[in-house]
Amino acid sequence: MGTFAIDPDRLRAGDRRALARSITLVESELPSHQLEAEALLEALMPSTGGSLRIGITGTPGVGKSTFIEAFGSLLVDSGLRIAVLAVDPSSPRGGGSILGDKTRMTRLARDERAFIRPSPSAGTLGGVASRTRETMLLCEAAGFDVVLVETVGVGQSELAVARMTDFFLVLMLAGAGDELQGIKRGVMELADALAINKADGDNLAAARRAASTYRAALALMHGTSEVVSWHPRVLTCSALEGTGVAEVWATIEAHRSQLTASGELQARRRAQQLEWLWAMVDERLRGAVRAHPQVAQALPGLERDVVDGRLASTTAARRILELFLGEVLPG
Amino acid sequence: MGTFAIDPDRLRAGDRRALARSITLVESELPSHQLEAEALLEALMPSTGGSLRIGITGTPGVGKSTFIEAFGSLLVDSGLRIAVLAVDPSSPRGGGSILGDKTRMTRLARDERAFIRPSPSAGTLGGVASRTRETMLLCEAAGFDVVLVETVGVGQSELAVARMTDFFLVLMLAGAGDELQGIKRGVMELADALAINKADGDNLAAARRAASTYRAALALMHGTSEVVSWHPRVLTCSALEGTGVAEVWATIEAHRSQLTASGELQARRRAQQLEWLWAMVDERLRGAVRAHPQVAQALPGLERDVVDGRLASTTAARRILELFLGEVLPG
Repeated sequence: MGTFAIDPDRLRAGDRRALARSITLVESELPSHQLEAEALLEALMPSTGGSLRIGITGTPGVGKSTFIEAFGSLLVDSGLRIAVLAVDPSSPRGGGSILGDKTRMTRLARDERAFIRPSPSAGTLGGVASRTRETMLLCEAAGFDVVLVETVGVGQSELAVARMTDFFLVLMLAGAGDELQGIKRGVMELADALAINKADGDNLAAARRAASTYRAALALMHGTSEVVSWHPRVLTCSALEGTGVAEVWATIEAHRSQLTASGELQARRRAQQLEWLWAMVDERLRGAVRAHPQVAQALPGLERDVVDGRLASTTAARRILELFLGEVLPG
Repeated sequence: MGTFAIDPDRLRAGDRRALARSITLVESELPSHQLEAEALLEALMPSTGGSLRIGITGTPGVGKSTFIEAFGSLLVDSGLRIAVLAVDPSSPRGGGSILGDKTRMTRLARDERAFIRPSPSAGTLGGVASRTRETMLLCEAAGFDVVLVETVGVGQSELAVARMTDFFLVLMLAGAGDELQGIKRGVMELADALAINKADGDNLAAARRAASTYRAALALMHGTSEVVSWHPRVLTCSALEGTGVAEVWATIEAHRSQLTASGELQARRRAQQLEWLWAMVDERLRGAVRAHPQVAQALPGLERDVVDGRLASTTAARRILELFLGEVLPG
């Protein structure tokens, strides 16, 4: 493959084809493409940062596609341009599992003001998330007002999405009684809001009860030592009937206003950018360590000894580093 | 300083002086001592793993010392030997702030069956936690039945302690109304049990109400996708009056029985050991990256550009790695 030769001005003017090709460039694993992507991003960086970045998660069955369709339609109807991306390291190589099929969001997929991009092909979480992060920057440069980053909740993907967005929304369902369905330990702590979906018909009362129980629970969970002034909200909605979706958007806007005024939004982004930098350094260093010939040879034995309790973790760490860096490191 | 020349057999026989000297050796930053510590640990590893490892956290004022005194006394009175260690990266160099003063636990400090070790001097969290982890192994080799690892909750120290223990206990207080005091976001998710302390006198009813509210909250927070069979418990106690402390111990014993029977306890330890190994590799690699002359020179500029949004995090990560590894890395 040759160069993409993307004109940054066309992308900045909102040209969809230029945007789509830029994303393909960013997703390419070819070293020459990566250098080209890097140069493109550098040219575009001054035009980034203008969108509202929203992360969204929810287990399968929670009605995530229907919610995004309703939520996105609300936004485009009010004149906003929205991009929908995904972090899904589980998707098969060459095709995105959660967004590959645009029939999931038929109305949004047809709308000129919306841009839906399937999840990149499988890879490490850091790799996938890193490409999604750069895709988000490209969408911002192309003038999108809102970037919605979706995750299905594989492994640590919620954390990765929360770390690249301004607002993290967790979709849930009220189940039998006041029990709520399938949320991973730790995810609740990331939420800026919970929305209990399918609050309609026979399910309405259960959803409201669940919301009230969750409100009480979150009030307890939210530490007093937190600096952030926002307290997570709990809402109910029916994406199917379209009720409550406007309230979710109003909550996100209130969050933005409040945290922009206090300076916390900018601080959050700055911290995220630095955190991401070091997460990438860690991940790629680990990859380099594992690929180092002498480490690769010693690693299975070292890991086995550590797991079996024959070798202290700290000792094994030191040996790995000595092999990798080729010198004796001080403690 | 010369060598410590510690006899592993004396330590295994429970010699307190050999144990104390071994810990000093493990805490030393002298490279020659580190090699000696490594050899000692290697000799002792087959004798480790026999203790019940308990982590405990709670904000200042929650009565942590009083609780440990009551809890530890209960254990030694029933014939168990207990070691009390601390992870406290905030303590000043050369003196431990949270355990340096043995007057905090006067009864336990005088007991032959208890061993209290002040927190090591300040350092990185990984460094401090790593020394505490190795100290825990030394205590196990010396035959202690229970190792209690205490943290004051600075930064990520709760996570570090939860990652080295079998059971993680969070001490709390009932405050005004049903509000609970000062717990950091994320810590609740680590708890195997919460104990609401100072459940005595005028405070008893509030503590019981708080426990009941917390029970409901934890039931919601605990994800259905979790494999672990244990559901966090909520207890009340008064360390001052000695009530409820035996129930905390009974809960920890029930946890051990259940997770030993299911194989989860062994699996947790194996996972912890591997996780710790890589956490140490990450931390020391980061240190080596930051100390690399060319990286050190470029880093302030790169970090500033990332924070200000002029440079994509991924691009900055690649540049740092190119400088450090001296080659162009593929994506």
